[in-house]
Amino acid sequence: MEAKNGNIIIDFEPISRRVLFSDDYSLYEILSELNVPISSICGGLGTCGKCKVLIQRGKEYLNNPTPSEKKFLSNNEIEDGWRLACQTKIDIKKKTYLETLQVPQFRVFLPRELLLEDFNILVSGISKGIEIRPAITKIFIEVKKSSLKEPIADFERIESALLSKSTNLNRNDEIKIDFNVLNDIPTLLRENQYKITLVLWNNTNIITCEPGNTLEENFGIAFDIGTTTIVGYLMNLNNGKIYAVDSKLNSQTAYGEDLITRLTFIKDNQKNLQKLNSAVINDLNEIIANVCNKANIKPSQIYEASVVGNSVMHHIFLGLNPVNIGLSPFIPVIQKNLNIKAKNLNLNILKNGNVYTSPLIAGFVGADTIGVILSSRVFNEKELTLAIDIGTNGEIIVGNRKILAVGSCAAGSALEGAHIADGMRAAAGAIDKIKIDPKNLDVSYTTIKHKKPIGICGSGLVDVIAEMLKSKIITRSGNFNKEIINHERFIKNDKNVEFIVAKNEETSLDKDITISQNDVRQIQMAKAAFYAGAKIILNNLKRNLKIEQVFLAGAFGNYINAYNAKFIGMIPDIHDDNIFQIGNAAGIGAQHCLLNKDLRNKAQTLLKKIQYIEIAVDKSFQKEYAEAMYFPHLNLDYFPSLKEYKVIPKR
Amino acid sequence: MEAKNGNIIIDFEPISRRVLFSDDYSLYEILSELNVPISSICGGLGTCGKCKVLIQRGKEYLNNPTPSEKKFLSNNEIEDGWRLACQTKIDIKKKTYLETLQVPQFRVFLPRELLLEDFNILVSGISKGIEIRPAITKIFIEVKKSSLKEPIADFERIESALLSKSTNLNRNDEIKIDFNVLNDIPTLLRENQYKITLVLWNNTNIITCEPGNTLEENFGIAFDIGTTTIVGYLMNLNNGKIYAVDSKLNSQTAYGEDLITRLTFIKDNQKNLQKLNSAVINDLNEIIANVCNKANIKPSQIYEASVVGNSVMHHIFLGLNPVNIGLSPFIPVIQKNLNIKAKNLNLNILKNGNVYTSPLIAGFVGADTIGVILSSRVFNEKELTLAIDIGTNGEIIVGNRKILAVGSCAAGSALEGAHIADGMRAAAGAIDKIKIDPKNLDVSYTTIKHKKPIGICGSGLVDVIAEMLKSKIITRSGNFNKEIINHERFIKNDKNVEFIVAKNEETSLDKDITISQNDVRQIQMAKAAFYAGAKIILNNLKRNLKIEQVFLAGAFGNYINAYNAKFIGMIPDIHDDNIFQIGNAAGIGAQHCLLNKDLRNKAQTLLKKIQYIEIAVDKSFQKEYAEAMYFPHLNLDYFPSLKEYKVIPKR
Repeated sequence: MEAKNGNIIIDFEPISRRVLFSDDYSLYEILSELNVPISSICGGLGTCGKCKVLIQRGKEYLNNPTPSEKKFLSNNEIEDGWRLACQTKIDIKKKTYLETLQVPQFRVFLPRELLLEDFNILVSGISKGIEIRPAITKIFIEVKKSSLKEPIADFERIESALLSKSTNLNRNDEIKIDFNVLNDIPTLLRENQYKITLVLWNNTNIITCEPGNTLEENFGIAFDIGTTTIVGYLMNLNNGKIYAVDSKLNSQTAYGEDLITRLTFIKDNQKNLQKLNSAVINDLNEIIANVCNKANIKPSQIYEASVVGNSVMHHIFLGLNPVNIGLSPFIPVIQKNLNIKAKNLNLNILKNGNVYTSPLIAGFVGADTIGVILSSRVFNEKELTLAIDIGTNGEIIVGNRKILAVGSCAAGSALEGAHIADGMRAAAGAIDKIKIDPKNLDVSYTTIKHKKPIGICGSGLVDVIAEMLKSKIITRSGNFNKEIINHERFIKNDKNVEFIVAKNEETSLDKDITISQNDVRQIQMAKAAFYAGAKIILNNLKRNLKIEQVFLAGAFGNYINAYNAKFIGMIPDIHDDNIFQIGNAAGIGAQHCLLNKDLRNKAQTLLKKIQYIEIAVDKSFQKEYAEAMYFPHLNLDYFPSLKEYKVIPKR
Repeated sequence: MEAKNGNIIIDFEPISRRVLFSDDYSLYEILSELNVPISSICGGLGTCGKCKVLIQRGKEYLNNPTPSEKKFLSNNEIEDGWRLACQTKIDIKKKTYLETLQVPQFRVFLPRELLLEDFNILVSGISKGIEIRPAITKIFIEVKKSSLKEPIADFERIESALLSKSTNLNRNDEIKIDFNVLNDIPTLLRENQYKITLVLWNNTNIITCEPGNTLEENFGIAFDIGTTTIVGYLMNLNNGKIYAVDSKLNSQTAYGEDLITRLTFIKDNQKNLQKLNSAVINDLNEIIANVCNKANIKPSQIYEASVVGNSVMHHIFLGLNPVNIGLSPFIPVIQKNLNIKAKNLNLNILKNGNVYTSPLIAGFVGADTIGVILSSRVFNEKELTLAIDIGTNGEIIVGNRKILAVGSCAAGSALEGAHIADGMRAAAGAIDKIKIDPKNLDVSYTTIKHKKPIGICGSGLVDVIAEMLKSKIITRSGNFNKEIINHERFIKNDKNVEFIVAKNEETSLDKDITISQNDVRQIQMAKAAFYAGAKIILNNLKRNLKIEQVFLAGAFGNYINAYNAKFIGMIPDIHDDNIFQIGNAAGIGAQHCLLNKDLRNKAQTLLKKIQYIEIAVDKSFQKEYAEAMYFPHLNLDYFPSLKEYKVIPKR
């Protein structure tokens, strides 16, 4: 089949896969050929209605909805761009016009329900020991019955039972109760022989009362809301054990892959904030339903949620308008720790449950970075530490027990496959590890889930660049080595040179998977942004400091080959023993805040100490960035351990 | 017209007026004859739809709704018992049956909108000086613009402007902001040159932000929710000035005149709590709309409400189930001070505004009594003081700077005209002051609004009993003096004797207004309940104490002739100089709590000190009550100053 060898461009999201196709095939056929397994019962006959996709760009060039689509889709859905993949083809009358366009004409979003294979979303990480001291505590009490001699109100009797039983409270502490819990009390007491369990937030606030003794069941949930992926961890607050984990792609990606696109979307129309907010709240509620299902508990048994995310994700989650974060001087609405009732956010845990959000630092650097700082304990390290959290946005932290500085760079998306012709996210069929034999340029690789390859994900991209350097395929400037580009592994035409990573016959694409000169440039820019960012932060600290250890956080940070990352100059030349892959440190930060309320104060205190550096506007950024574009750097003195390695010099 | 001389009984509410009528007249005609002026444009032709009344009892004995009623009333309204007064007559076929009934067959509720004359609801009172220290404060700030060098979030810049300007705050105080205000901030700041006014509750909680400088406008509202009447006071929180007052009859009276009836109504069906709650919230919102209209402000400019009411009114207002207050051991859900967001109660002030309710003491003795205690400052008096608050429920307070005890008696309703054949509330046409000439038994009286009399209100009832005693018409036992009942002022028949207060030709009723033997008994029981209640409290204090001064609070307490009250033995024999009529002390208590937040803590502190005495279950109650049934008392030694007065001795 030649579906993908046509000349019309289609971008499939959220897998970030671009293909060329001809007009003769339905979207369903194209996806099948790509080996992207999607839900369908009828096998593309239009009778099951399962293969719903959202056309985000180009719906005017498609055939009109068929009777089958009108059966399965509402008018509103069709209006919004929803189609059945098996019924959707290009409008043949518009083909000639489409072929004259130079830009991608179609963008098709595949909803999570459609994709049968989960993405590789990093949920685990390295958790340093944490003392269990949650904001949520439970106390089982036996309340005195009232009498004519002591006609004390129900609440006041609960209060005195609590004060005499709790070890955290003084007799003068004022006990508060959520107003809507009050009406449950009379019946609850009388139907349970006056034996009930109080659920307390911060010792003095009764957020719910339960019949009998329920001390064993004490749940909280930690969320890491990434630009692209969301992870939720259901935890037992009595012992810190993770009961269930669930993750999904952030549904906001349907409205824009990166933060700037989403900010523009909101700026265009205030109502769009509501759309994005609903999207993320629905995602979290879906995760809540899934983890509750796994752990066999009810959502109302979750008493608190702890949430981290970058500044924009934080604001959208809370329904706060984030547009000023995107405009100089990049100001959020609020930075500090927040505690909000779940019902006010429509988050489906206990209605009176608390939602805690960690503070934001500045600009895009948000609660997720606080999460990384809290869980990695950078502030306790003796060695000066560079911690980078590589996601769709990159955050850079430099610190130790004395200093703490942060900045951000919008460098991560190339490493998630964006802007790379054969790039993709870490989904099934992505090439994730690559070796090149320097003698014959033979390529060996592994793929995620051992599927036939359909693209290269971030760790594969770092590998392929490092291996191309080692094999002298590219120079330190990132140019293809003109001396070997006649090798059979190269494709040449007037405009471009490409190195074949996986040959046509090995792939699911019926085409070669390659790395082009442009792809190399994209990786150069991304890695230079990280390196230059760290350098700018160091320069701002003005103390002639030297990085002594590196923490790699985030999904990509964990799968990456650290040596290769250093080899291409993405991170400084530190001994491998001092490079630590700390996993989803932001998510672990959210967990820690759930388990230990003192860390929340710590977060607020750190906020005053952290220096925020606006990297992109620093006057030396252009110079540092340009120098860091070289592999590993213009100045090889910065990479003494790689000096020996005989890569082709810059030219 | 003979409308009211028929033999079918109809009770008109909320004016508590019972009349006899024949079947030939419409309700509209009866009301016109009674001189109760009601809204009607068409004059009873059925073409304006204004004269809507609610038939609360006996609708099955009325004619079917006419086409005119079907035009103006919905099916639901007709189902619920609403009729047009001008269209509604007795069903002639049921007349014979009705005449065999001995009980009142009809109860007709006249909605407030219908009554053209306002009731005499006591809104004023004697306010002891109060230091202005409200929970609501305003601060005008100029917020620093943010810059790339100091990229501080909007909220945090507001916070630091506030901390540097406020004299009540320390640098370490944590400022909180209502979550739903956050989203207004960015635009508010940028559209007002960063000059805004913060509205703070308890110094640290920002409940709203306003453009520019609005320091001058700072409003709160105090409510006294009585069983029968509700009063609202719109106050300027900067200076304590009352801007507007409005009052209305409590719409809950449509569901039951007294608390026990309403508690039974709720016990019958949980949904009825919602009905009563909506009724009172609608009343308060109507008062809010009226006072805002008078003062030319918006409801959202009212930042706090302070509410007092007895325990049942308090619970119904808050939507809390009050049924356990009506069952031994008479337990409320909660007693203490509460602060609740207005939006959670659907109270139409600022959505984030605070609603403060004073604490309850015990049983029916609620926040209104705390209000009386706070405003009268009983707790500061050197003299042992008896304070009685006479409303539909009677509350009795005994205290001074050392002791404080309270109790309640369900004695007030006779004094509001209930159970008295010609009794009524203090509305237009009520006889409110009475003198009897002992020589010829001629009666002189005044009426409210100088209308022709239609009944006797509470102060008139106290007067008439005292005057009947002085004129030797009744004995100290409350029996008619058999020696003079042949006088022309008496009506005698087999069962009863009645004294004519106003003759047929003087009234709007075409019948005499009289006091019967039964009426005297009702007053005896009411006054005995107050006296015995006070005595029981004193006995419980066990210190051989003697009342040294009396405070009379409540609407009735203010209009009453204090000497006559003492003369009939309702209050102890205290020199007139030591009897103080303190007006609507409960309402003033609500105002004071609005103006001075320290009083709220005082209320909570007092609660621990107050002894609550369950009067009705005290073992000596029956004896004390029986003795107090005499005028002024069985033991004349308790009333030395009246000993000289030659009333007819008991017999």
